[in-house]
Amino acid sequence: MNSYVVGMDIGGTKLATVVADASGKILQKVRKPTETEKGPQHAVQRLLEMVDETIRLAGLKREDISAIGVSCGGPLDTKTGVIYSPPNLPGWDSLPLKALMEAEFHIPTTIENDANAEALAEWRFGGGRGHNYVLYMTMSTGIGGGIIANGQIYHGANDSAGEVGHQILLPNGPLCRCGKHGCLEALCSGPAIARRAQEAIRKQPKPNTALLELTNGNIDCVKSEHVLEAVRNGDSLAISIMQETAYYMGWGIANLVNILNPEIVLIGTIAIAAGDLLLDPIRQIVADMAMQRPAEVVKIMPAQLGEAVGDLAAIALVIDD
Amino acid sequence: MNSYVVGMDIGGTKLATVVADASGKILQKVRKPTETEKGPQHAVQRLLEMVDETIRLAGLKREDISAIGVSCGGPLDTKTGVIYSPPNLPGWDSLPLKALMEAEFHIPTTIENDANAEALAEWRFGGGRGHNYVLYMTMSTGIGGGIIANGQIYHGANDSAGEVGHQILLPNGPLCRCGKHGCLEALCSGPAIARRAQEAIRKQPKPNTALLELTNGNIDCVKSEHVLEAVRNGDSLAISIMQETAYYMGWGIANLVNILNPEIVLIGTIAIAAGDLLLDPIRQIVADMAMQRPAEVVKIMPAQLGEAVGDLAAIALVIDD
Repeated sequence: MNSYVVGMDIGGTKLATVVADASGKILQKVRKPTETEKGPQHAVQRLLEMVDETIRLAGLKREDISAIGVSCGGPLDTKTGVIYSPPNLPGWDSLPLKALMEAEFHIPTTIENDANAEALAEWRFGGGRGHNYVLYMTMSTGIGGGIIANGQIYHGANDSAGEVGHQILLPNGPLCRCGKHGCLEALCSGPAIARRAQEAIRKQPKPNTALLELTNGNIDCVKSEHVLEAVRNGDSLAISIMQETAYYMGWGIANLVNILNPEIVLIGTIAIAAGDLLLDPIRQIVADMAMQRPAEVVKIMPAQLGEAVGDLAAIALVIDD
Repeated sequence: MNSYVVGMDIGGTKLATVVADASGKILQKVRKPTETEKGPQHAVQRLLEMVDETIRLAGLKREDISAIGVSCGGPLDTKTGVIYSPPNLPGWDSLPLKALMEAEFHIPTTIENDANAEALAEWRFGGGRGHNYVLYMTMSTGIGGGIIANGQIYHGANDSAGEVGHQILLPNGPLCRCGKHGCLEALCSGPAIARRAQEAIRKQPKPNTALLELTNGNIDCVKSEHVLEAVRNGDSLAISIMQETAYYMGWGIANLVNILNPEIVLIGTIAIAAGDLLLDPIRQIVADMAMQRPAEVVKIMPAQLGEAVGDLAAIALVIDD
């Protein structure tokens, strides 16, 4: 009777392990800091212990678990289960995580990059349910993505598909974390929105914006959350930053709509917080810039799983239909 | 013993029907003009007659045929087999071509948009053989595309996926046939290359370019073929037009490489004619603009089937592995 699964969400600041039943219902969760400075061996040892602890807390035994799903920052190889130096996990160079887990627990382990796993979770448990073609986009520190077609993650040749945040819109635009210029991410991620807001304030001879009140006059402290709050207060500078954000997001999504023809585009974090304030102008831009046939079928919505997406991402990898 | 198939290639100027054996080898072909001015009923009647004629010329009977594959300009619905007013087939409004064929021949008929069918043909018979993730791009009057993942056409929500030529690079750029501005197609299709060359000549106070010799001084007659010929003769204006073309193509393909992570990108007509003269600078731009991991795995090559692609596109739809 092994109808339970373990999910493992590996981030740069924290590790989480969960145990879920066959329907994906989470029964127990354990969280610990990653402490990347102590290296991957430390984190892996911690994960092994956390799995056993979570199983025990759920009142189960190792033999009750049929599979382990792992959601982790890429790049990684889903076939071999080897992780290749994700930016948020320094030192995790060619780490054979799948092999390490299978050697310890003797059950199949599936490893997936986090945006892809989250896309699958949205398809299985969230806003993508019932849709054959789902495009999921993260929108927080970076802009990542995952493509689901007929219930399957679209992996691409070496598990790199779905890097929708690195489509280049302005080749002479701002530098992106990836080293290129003018990627969608360099224009619309949280830090990019903050940077554009800060630049706009500095350009004003006598800045008059709620953004300064929200940050006690410290321009460097302006974040995307402040922009959103100031928009709600009717601040004109913040509104123009939000409109610009919607324009670039709409342009990027229009291109993706033409290329991928999704039934639904689900956008995370910032789009969840902003809601229609951001999504309505994005929808308008997509209607203007995408081709009519794919545009008339696509829905653009906030992702539904919110904070729970990390745990469900790992679980979604090992739940059957 | 029905181990033969019929392929039907429906274009705005000509219709073609072929009969092939189970391996895809074409045994006979019949070609007739479409005569779109006579309307869809005329063309459909002609197609029905052409099928019987092709079967007869191949020394076969109707009962030897197991399936019909149809490659046709979109938009169309692959599930219902209804064609919705393709730009090159005026009057073909909600034409139930699959139903019409199946009523006459009583065998399964598969209808697919031409770029998708050509992509499948390149995967099955051409440059995409042995690859799991193939991106095929047409590059002639327009820029179309087809995405093959694990031997399947990536259709999208309403059979509109793969419109890679309508990703917008320059929102304030030249008007595209689709009604938007600055699409990849509006910059790099044959007519777009010709237009950019003509504009560049007109900007020169004293035009000195082989392009004028090739067209007897008639700027309006400059075509993309002339640009290519002039590049081979070392003409500097033509070389700059070709470099600009490679830049836009490389930019668009870099975005597609990040989104789709293909093993191979196969480009038709103009890229076949130009070869490495165009493809080498495109490869360089993709290496510069795409992310490292998907860029290091992708091959960018001319499509292999050339003129035969139309017939093989229709056949590829109904050949099994």
